[in-house]
Amino acid sequence: MTDDSNQKLGDLVVFVDTPSATPDAPAAEDATPDAPAAKDAPADETSPTPHPVPLAEAAVNVGDLAVSRGDGIFESIAVIGGRFIALGPHLARLAHSAELLELPAPDLAAFERAARAGVDAHTAEPELLVKLVYSRGIEGDGRASGWVQVLSGANHAEARGRGIRVVTLDRGYRHDIATTSPWLLQGAKTLSYALNKAALREAARRGADDVVFVSSDDVVLEAPTSNVLVRHGDLFRTPRTDLGILAGTTQAAVFDTLDRLGFETAETVLSTAELAAADNIWLLSSGRLVAPVRELDGRAVAVDHELTAKLLDETFGVLAP
Amino acid sequence: MTDDSNQKLGDLVVFVDTPSATPDAPAAEDATPDAPAAKDAPADETSPTPHPVPLAEAAVNVGDLAVSRGDGIFESIAVIGGRFIALGPHLARLAHSAELLELPAPDLAAFERAARAGVDAHTAEPELLVKLVYSRGIEGDGRASGWVQVLSGANHAEARGRGIRVVTLDRGYRHDIATTSPWLLQGAKTLSYALNKAALREAARRGADDVVFVSSDDVVLEAPTSNVLVRHGDLFRTPRTDLGILAGTTQAAVFDTLDRLGFETAETVLSTAELAAADNIWLLSSGRLVAPVRELDGRAVAVDHELTAKLLDETFGVLAP
Repeated sequence: MTDDSNQKLGDLVVFVDTPSATPDAPAAEDATPDAPAAKDAPADETSPTPHPVPLAEAAVNVGDLAVSRGDGIFESIAVIGGRFIALGPHLARLAHSAELLELPAPDLAAFERAARAGVDAHTAEPELLVKLVYSRGIEGDGRASGWVQVLSGANHAEARGRGIRVVTLDRGYRHDIATTSPWLLQGAKTLSYALNKAALREAARRGADDVVFVSSDDVVLEAPTSNVLVRHGDLFRTPRTDLGILAGTTQAAVFDTLDRLGFETAETVLSTAELAAADNIWLLSSGRLVAPVRELDGRAVAVDHELTAKLLDETFGVLAP
Repeated sequence: MTDDSNQKLGDLVVFVDTPSATPDAPAAEDATPDAPAAKDAPADETSPTPHPVPLAEAAVNVGDLAVSRGDGIFESIAVIGGRFIALGPHLARLAHSAELLELPAPDLAAFERAARAGVDAHTAEPELLVKLVYSRGIEGDGRASGWVQVLSGANHAEARGRGIRVVTLDRGYRHDIATTSPWLLQGAKTLSYALNKAALREAARRGADDVVFVSSDDVVLEAPTSNVLVRHGDLFRTPRTDLGILAGTTQAAVFDTLDRLGFETAETVLSTAELAAADNIWLLSSGRLVAPVRELDGRAVAVDHELTAKLLDETFGVLAP
């Protein structure tokens, strides 16, 4: 077994034991009558020992609803110098997304074991990214599937140091859509990310690195994979989570630091006009952590390099480039 | 090789040769630096002979963007008595969806070969469902991935005979969103279907079988996997495709039959009030084909069994139950 040796792997996957199937569960309306058993389940399902496999050898069945429908959820967690950043809040958010999608409650302890075993098995690097993935499983099988990916961290030096260019794009929804139409799954971190990828391609076409989504009624929402932090003087604000956006684990950690530094913080409803008038803007996420915005819709935005460095260091122990 | 014998398979998958990688293509912003090669690629990539494998043995790498991001597209095609229904329009729509997602142009001939080989290899059944799946492939690899699933048809006797109950749900978007915000990918048949699945669960909670999405400004759009057909007297109408909905292959075939039968047909903008006042309503899709609506938002709708049977028979050669 790979995890018994000291041989470290590169990018890898650890499959997670998922809640037992309910054999007599009613099949989904459009279930495949003779859906196959999960090919990727661990060979010994009673084994509590997570077994890391190289990413290139980690496969899921074509019939898994993650593959065919993006019908699952995920979390991305930074591991800095071997230390998980906000593991608890990420696990809690995974459970929350599962509720919104009516998935079986994920076994958070099993995900945590798999994540820790995966990081132990990966070659040590200053920054790793751990993804937790949890899907509805094979169609008609009634059993969720889950796995953890451990990936080398991308190089975020330019984003953290020089800053990023962003454009605002209409998300198409009113700001209150999560309250009125919960079936739109706003606020859940689902695997159905094609739209977010398309928005990033639109940003690239406009000469930008990232997107800030705004509602059809001009309220600032979130970025495809980040929360927005806006500063006016000593007041730091981020959009409220009842706007159908994800509760940011990185944002929560940064707010703790800002509070400690004596700044005022608030979750609020921000208009696009307030965003445009901000002294500084940052995007907060598990990969880049704290990325200052240096351009908004083609207009220069001031970057506070000193505060950015302080937030990176004091919150995450990461030195700015 | 399975496809050399006369041994028929149950549900199966045929992988499709995809356009060659561009080795020096720039990596995506968040690409995994050492992304693995596709594990599921055919062993002999120069072979023109599609090779069906049982669904239970068909796997894709965890790093495929179909799995991690729902970043791909699909088509579902009915095969009635061994005959593909509207194969050409489905292939054309696959190519159109690929354009909307900026995927490499799919090799439609390869998809067709794989689909035909898959149906040949599957046990003969009155109705089969063939799914074409095309994804952006392994993250950072620059090469799309594709496969064809051949599945036993579900039993649609009750839906076609007795009819279905539907509820209207707000899709959250204005009716003109596809024109103003193309990055929302309305009109592309993507693998990011978690929202559609959530809407169907909401319908079930309301005692219904399916959903008709309406825009935030009260325009009838489409169902999660069907087009809407609305009758007032001798006039049959369906929502226009510039409303950010899918061009229906089944709808187009049914319109041909209606035209032949002497009815008037039109693609139009339909208000929710016009839907509620319809003489009859149907949902049209590749699986159920023609499903009369017997209840809309809890109110009975008249079912024209005779015309439904005629549309099923004359368009698809399917006898109503």
